[in-house]
Amino acid sequence: MQIYNIDTALTAVEDALISVVDTDVETLKDASEHIILSGGKRVRPQLLILAYQASGGKNLAESIRIAAAIELVHTATLVHDDINDHSDFRRGRLAVHKRWGRTFALLTGDYLFTKVYELMAPYGNPFNEIMAKACVRLVEGETLQAHAAKTGDIDRETYKKIIARKTASLFEAAAEMGGLLAGASPETVAGLKTYGYNLGLTFQLVDDILDVVGSADEMGKPIGLDLNQGRGVFAVENGAAVASPPVTKLADDDPVQRMMNRMRDSGAIEIAKLQAQEMGERARAGLRHVPQSEFKMELNNLIDSVLNRRN
Amino acid sequence: MQIYNIDTALTAVEDALISVVDTDVETLKDASEHIILSGGKRVRPQLLILAYQASGGKNLAESIRIAAAIELVHTATLVHDDINDHSDFRRGRLAVHKRWGRTFALLTGDYLFTKVYELMAPYGNPFNEIMAKACVRLVEGETLQAHAAKTGDIDRETYKKIIARKTASLFEAAAEMGGLLAGASPETVAGLKTYGYNLGLTFQLVDDILDVVGSADEMGKPIGLDLNQGRGVFAVENGAAVASPPVTKLADDDPVQRMMNRMRDSGAIEIAKLQAQEMGERARAGLRHVPQSEFKMELNNLIDSVLNRRN
Repeated sequence: MQIYNIDTALTAVEDALISVVDTDVETLKDASEHIILSGGKRVRPQLLILAYQASGGKNLAESIRIAAAIELVHTATLVHDDINDHSDFRRGRLAVHKRWGRTFALLTGDYLFTKVYELMAPYGNPFNEIMAKACVRLVEGETLQAHAAKTGDIDRETYKKIIARKTASLFEAAAEMGGLLAGASPETVAGLKTYGYNLGLTFQLVDDILDVVGSADEMGKPIGLDLNQGRGVFAVENGAAVASPPVTKLADDDPVQRMMNRMRDSGAIEIAKLQAQEMGERARAGLRHVPQSEFKMELNNLIDSVLNRRN
Repeated sequence: MQIYNIDTALTAVEDALISVVDTDVETLKDASEHIILSGGKRVRPQLLILAYQASGGKNLAESIRIAAAIELVHTATLVHDDINDHSDFRRGRLAVHKRWGRTFALLTGDYLFTKVYELMAPYGNPFNEIMAKACVRLVEGETLQAHAAKTGDIDRETYKKIIARKTASLFEAAAEMGGLLAGASPETVAGLKTYGYNLGLTFQLVDDILDVVGSADEMGKPIGLDLNQGRGVFAVENGAAVASPPVTKLADDDPVQRMMNRMRDSGAIEIAKLQAQEMGERARAGLRHVPQSEFKMELNNLIDSVLNRRN
């Protein structure tokens, strides 16, 4: 199979995602399809494929399974996150645990994770080592976040550590693996890693900003929930945006709404936006080590679309 | 590093299990160590290493990481199982979710699973493909079991399917990988697979029998719980041991105890024991394709110790 066009490749990724969860255990199949077909931005597979192309990769067919795997890591996390966060909706659909119950949601997340492993196996190393490391980081980040939500002990540094591990690590791995798959030079791979890592930070900062300023309708999930879980929310501390104290420290009568209003008024959102732009520029700097091409332009455009997204 | 003795190797596996969960995220480290240090029979690593030795493998050092990985798959499952089964204890210790809460237990299970991936990565293929497939099967088996517990729709065939996937698959993979790692002939590997698969069935049958006849003290977990969850419990149906109806179909006033008594009296346990012996003999038949050696004798002995264990 030969694929030369990224849109065709991304369609093939969707097909791969669905075909890999084909099993005679109906609940696993149904619940997996439910979350996969609920869509998502697919920014991680897109990043991987663009990095591959920008590194001179021609036959996108060889990137399909690995691109699907990287999206599936993210998907597995969403299923487990929604259990832990008690979120009822995801991407405008019922969360898996709301529809199938917590037991099956836990198992579905586990199942998707085993499928990541299955998709990745044929690539050998260094791909499996890179992916394994990214997965470890991701779970560490999720755990730090759960801790911050529980203890209320969250400051700027902790927030940065959380988003670096839970989001930036996987973006970094996607960009790195795209480059390696195309046989890029060490310098190009290093540039792509810098790009991916900082794009991940940008993405998460924007996500957290949107969580405060966006509307529930646009996001397809309840607004303010991330705030409620004590994550990704900003306040001004010494002129810098930091994560807010957890909602448990707030007073009654719709404290989340009050907090959100306070943040809108405090200037914290503007500061967070500037930080996102700074991370975006760091991502752009990483591209200096990537040879000029139309695909490098696309990687540049991706930074802007991450910065400018509204939902 | 050179290791020539299985006891030394198994000690090295323990060290590998602990060192691989070393992280700055304290809860993950503490909860992982808690479950790892609670012990366990370590029958899967033992199986892998014996298969390696019986296939002519000399330097056990090369089997340590993969043996640790196979134990860690099982360990990760235990943590998630205990959440789903609402088990308060595991191996005489508080279950992870009882000590750290459900959120952190879910994340700890995920974390252990990412560490399986990390341990396995250096082995490349076919090892990663074999392990991935076994992990997929395991989660499928767990899901079938959760379904049976929920719907009460469990018969002999379903029970066999459940234990084949949730237990025998991983045993099969352990034996196969041990053989492959030592460069065994295809015939020996096929024999080891048959051995491992049937040893897994035997092991699970015995586990489920002990769950009915054992004492809570010996097992380190509440007796009758597996029954309560609708799994691994036998009744006589057309002269064959089959899984019992779920506890929800039973009457009040300690229905679990009543059920257990009924099973003890019905002869179902004796039939299940005979089935376990039959599976044990099938495992032994697999060894016919393995060359004679002291390690093959150990594999034979392993069948007997699985059949004769009391806790």
